[in-house]
Amino acid sequence: MSLPVSFLSDFGLEDEFVGVVHGVIAKLAPESRVVDIGHNFPRGNVKAAALALTRSIQYVPEGVCLAVVDPGVGTDRRAIAAETPWGFFVGPDNGLLSPAVAIVGGATEIVSIENPEAMIPSPGETFHGRDIFGPAAALLAAGDAALGDLGPSIPGETVMPMMLPLTDTEGDVITGEAWWVDRFGNVETNISPEDLVLAGLAEGDHVTVKVGATLHTVPWVTSYGEVEEGEALLHVDSVGLMALAVRGGRADEELNVGEGVAVSVVARRSATAE
Amino acid sequence: MSLPVSFLSDFGLEDEFVGVVHGVIAKLAPESRVVDIGHNFPRGNVKAAALALTRSIQYVPEGVCLAVVDPGVGTDRRAIAAETPWGFFVGPDNGLLSPAVAIVGGATEIVSIENPEAMIPSPGETFHGRDIFGPAAALLAAGDAALGDLGPSIPGETVMPMMLPLTDTEGDVITGEAWWVDRFGNVETNISPEDLVLAGLAEGDHVTVKVGATLHTVPWVTSYGEVEEGEALLHVDSVGLMALAVRGGRADEELNVGEGVAVSVVARRSATAE
Amino acid sequence: MSLPVSFLSDFGLEDEFVGVVHGVIAKLAPESRVVDIGHNFPRGNVKAAALALTRSIQYVPEGVCLAVVDPGVGTDRRAIAAETPWGFFVGPDNGLLSPAVAIVGGATEIVSIENPEAMIPSPGETFHGRDIFGPAAALLAAGDAALGDLGPSIPGETVMPMMLPLTDTEGDVITGEAWWVDRFGNVETNISPEDLVLAGLAEGDHVTVKVGATLHTVPWVTSYGEVEEGEALLHVDSVGLMALAVRGGRADEELNVGEGVAVSVVARRSATAE
Repeated sequence: MSLPVSFLSDFGLEDEFVGVVHGVIAKLAPESRVVDIGHNFPRGNVKAAALALTRSIQYVPEGVCLAVVDPGVGTDRRAIAAETPWGFFVGPDNGLLSPAVAIVGGATEIVSIENPEAMIPSPGETFHGRDIFGPAAALLAAGDAALGDLGPSIPGETVMPMMLPLTDTEGDVITGEAWWVDRFGNVETNISPEDLVLAGLAEGDHVTVKVGATLHTVPWVTSYGEVEEGEALLHVDSVGLMALAVRGGRADEELNVGEGVAVSVVARRSATAE
Repeated sequence: MSLPVSFLSDFGLEDEFVGVVHGVIAKLAPESRVVDIGHNFPRGNVKAAALALTRSIQYVPEGVCLAVVDPGVGTDRRAIAAETPWGFFVGPDNGLLSPAVAIVGGATEIVSIENPEAMIPSPGETFHGRDIFGPAAALLAAGDAALGDLGPSIPGETVMPMMLPLTDTEGDVITGEAWWVDRFGNVETNISPEDLVLAGLAEGDHVTVKVGATLHTVPWVTSYGEVEEGEALLHVDSVGLMALAVRGGRADEELNVGEGVAVSVVARRSATAE
Repeated sequence: MSLPVSFLSDFGLEDEFVGVVHGVIAKLAPESRVVDIGHNFPRGNVKAAALALTRSIQYVPEGVCLAVVDPGVGTDRRAIAAETPWGFFVGPDNGLLSPAVAIVGGATEIVSIENPEAMIPSPGETFHGRDIFGPAAALLAAGDAALGDLGPSIPGETVMPMMLPLTDTEGDVITGEAWWVDRFGNVETNISPEDLVLAGLAEGDHVTVKVGATLHTVPWVTSYGEVEEGEALLHVDSVGLMALAVRGGRADEELNVGEGVAVSVVARRSATAE
């Protein structure tokens, strides 16, 4: 039985790049279902795509995960495939796969994809999604290759990690960052509800949030419906992290916060007005 | 045998929202084919998406229709599932499903999706597409849930209708509105060819069309090829409604007409010049 | 066994056009896999889409190729289907299919799709993708129609060719054109590496490239990694043609070159500075 392939990239949908990789998979693994996680992640932004993969991995079917965001294409970064309790991961060795692999329990084996027999020969510059990553994912999905058929085993400690920022609690201030703004303008931070609870806050409190140099007082609520249209709120989002939102509006614009901006929560209830 | 799922949303293709719902369906209904009707409908525009669904429903395979355009997420609007002669419909109770359900013959039973066993538990705020609507659609598609397993039956008259504007004929003027501008700039109205025929017009006539305060004289033709490049025309479009188009151009721009603008047809042949 | 269908169009993903054609295929060929080559090719640009099809055809599974970029819809251009050693091609008779059909070995038979029993009746103006091309592709894929069931055979020489520009070598100057700018800003020309080799150049040379009236000296390298960040390069791209690129940048912007612009390579090593 063929495994499903879940496919993420920054190829965009303007050209035929994604379609050609789908074609390669359809040829090599005609029975495999392909789930497109998304292909419009910001070009070359490995961190943003790695975070999207961590948000998605538990919701896509176990099997093969093919992820290609590869600003180092054409350099000597390796192409890797990993076996995990969840299934196989295939992509560039640039940190993209690392957080998702960790979430599903870590890799039991990792190989460097180097076997030309597992690749499609290219008439020129290699299109790695089409010629290396896509075929590797499809061969694993179809059961036509074992991990070791793709290339030599490599030690896990040589694989590029993804350095994700940690939150920092100092006194009564928990500092993190905005790490995802979704298309609706909702701003997810890397701060967890446990961070806030440890600092003595509870759902229902009004909380002081510092974005850049500006303080905002917003309620920590369960859902949008608890505030009025146009009001800002802090809530645990669908991924389980603290997020800023504006009911019927865009938090990124109204609170002036983009990806990477420092966000702090002050663990004193009420406090300074917005 | 698993039923196909036809999926429409306003999630866009920038993030992984659509992909995650696909993943949920692939996990719960691995044999079901998924047809994406579209995911770039204008954010929160329930009417535009409801019209797209009415245009599409007869062309997608009978089975399960999953539609999520949900500006009321986080409020107390219900999640519903309906059984019809066509198959099942799943979505928010905000009017989105109503016209399509009516087209296929109406609902024989409607339930409010409330059974937590039919949902995916969320670590925080519920992502309804992923946690409620997607699973409900997949369980129905896979035959792993009957409609009644999703929640209690509700009376059809409590379900939100979609108020679609009717045309109005007064004297020799038929007044309707532009209700869809497609990506090519073609402008579909809610006026039917029967409205025009009842008023004494026939294909081949030159017709006076009033857009806002401006009068245009355009020929009622069968196809683009009957007018010159750059000329405006009125025709019965592929959905069966009267539409304004410009051969090789954009009617929305050249006739200055957007969605919701009043459009009248005057049932006097020839008449005032453009 | 049903054949896979590879589908290319300029319908975009804003409306439900692509989804409706998918629905039609799913209804008529429920066992056929559909590979989307892409749907955001520039509206009405038959040449750009024909080139994308030639780049893709060897990578998508043999079966049925459905391609619809159709600025002549509503005129008397024919709808055609062709049988080739690769499989079937379905689309408008406007040159779109011709280069891909030639690449896979040419057509053994071509028909004009005219049989109303192979079409879906439309309530008004025919949406050819939905009513003619989609059904023809699906019937062929499902094995429910032979080519001859779609309409009468037509002579190959009456089918519209696609005139693709040839390169021209005069003295030591090879002149071609930029014929594709991808989303990363890479500029593919119609000049092949054989053209350069015949003129005495070799990989590793610094080459003079003339874009419009401007001369640039760039190295002919195998891959991006051989130049510094921000530097321009000439290389054989993944399709096998000479392409201009800028490592970590956009060649289209930095060298001021768009689709259709003349590009020459001067077969004198080193030469005028950039």
